[in-house]
Amino acid sequence: MKTLVVIAHPDVTDSTTQQFFLESSQTLDDVKNHYIETDKINIQEQQELLKAYDRIIFQFPMYWYSAPYQLKKWIDEVFDDSLMKGALKGKELGLVISLGVSEKNFAAGQSEKFTLSELFRPFEALAGKCGMIYLPILSVSLFAYLEEPEKKALLVKYQQYLTKENKSSFENEEEWFVNRLETYLKEEDSNNQMVISSILEGVKENRENLNELRMFVEEMRESNG
Amino acid sequence: MKTLVVIAHPDVTDSTTQQFFLESSQTLDDVKNHYIETDKINIQEQQELLKAYDRIIFQFPMYWYSAPYQLKKWIDEVFDDSLMKGALKGKELGLVISLGVSEKNFAAGQSEKFTLSELFRPFEALAGKCGMIYLPILSVSLFAYLEEPEKKALLVKYQQYLTKENKSSFENEEEWFVNRLETYLKEEDSNNQMVISSILEGVKENRENLNELRMFVEEMRESNG
Repeated sequence: MKTLVVIAHPDVTDSTTQQFFLESSQTLDDVKNHYIETDKINIQEQQELLKAYDRIIFQFPMYWYSAPYQLKKWIDEVFDDSLMKGALKGKELGLVISLGVSEKNFAAGQSEKFTLSELFRPFEALAGKCGMIYLPILSVSLFAYLEEPEKKALLVKYQQYLTKENKSSFENEEEWFVNRLETYLKEEDSNNQMVISSILEGVKENRENLNELRMFVEEMRESNG
Repeated sequence: MKTLVVIAHPDVTDSTTQQFFLESSQTLDDVKNHYIETDKINIQEQQELLKAYDRIIFQFPMYWYSAPYQLKKWIDEVFDDSLMKGALKGKELGLVISLGVSEKNFAAGQSEKFTLSELFRPFEALAGKCGMIYLPILSVSLFAYLEEPEKKALLVKYQQYLTKENKSSFENEEEWFVNRLETYLKEEDSNNQMVISSILEGVKENRENLNELRMFVEEMRESNG
């Protein structure tokens, strides 16, 4: 699966959140970061780019309950009948949104009144119109206040959002981790390789045990049935 | 009440809908049409303008389930803490949206899936954040296909959206019409003046009859109470 991250931010180099995302995706194959230009948009070029990827992510900070105008300008110009009528069909559309306030405030009765799902309906509608699969939003609030362990958890969550198959089964989660660990294994020095190898062996052993248990349960069911 | 119509359209002169709106508002006092510029926005000037009006209308064609980027750019630049923290409190915010498809398609189970109320939540949230009163959306779909009587009805609806008090009582509706007729009366030639005068007299007579009936009903209630 190839993923295109379309980034709309007035000043990416100055944003610690965007820099964190950038670093988090560096070790991922098949992920391309694409900073949109707003001055002169080559429509055909941008359309070809979209067509070449399976998962498209719009990544931006929330400004006034929506994306910054730069992304809307890009959408207004790049999206047309050709994209609407089949060129993007079956591809996935996801949003990575950074927030200046805590996400718990996005709810009825809270200060921001509406959920992110409600506020970003226009993107859900756009995906629907193009026959795309709309992914659950990944939001990051108050990045500057995150502790190290929270940042590590976010890194995994973000990498998964970009590359993990859109299925929430345990096997799917496990497979993703095994693939990631195997990739790291090749890049690390011998000390780390030993640690990673043992984690990998543990995961695979768990998988075998789990499969045996499953078979056992199935046999029991059949003999009772 | 003073109304500011903030118009965001890539080519106003070429839009029959926008031209119709423009003509419809020409006879209205206390209504100012304001075409936003996107190249160089004088933030302070635009903020002062907003502060000087009681009702603010954003008027635009719907592009990809939202406003054209030109409006978002203007909002991103003009709206700041000062507007959020009291400067616009108690003012009204309304949206006049022209649509390329019939409004009945904006519903669950229909082609556009979501209602306009849902799609324009970001504007409702913006109004809420600034302490403004959010007005029901005025939408115009498929303007080019409207018949003359429909256009006349739209003209009244549009004028009311710009100038009628935000109360849905019958008296409020009636008062608005009396005011409009009295304004026309001054501008018309003698033939039309006679027609308008007789309509006005009819409306006022109805009002007197209605008031008498009301008093009669109240007296009956009191004598029974």
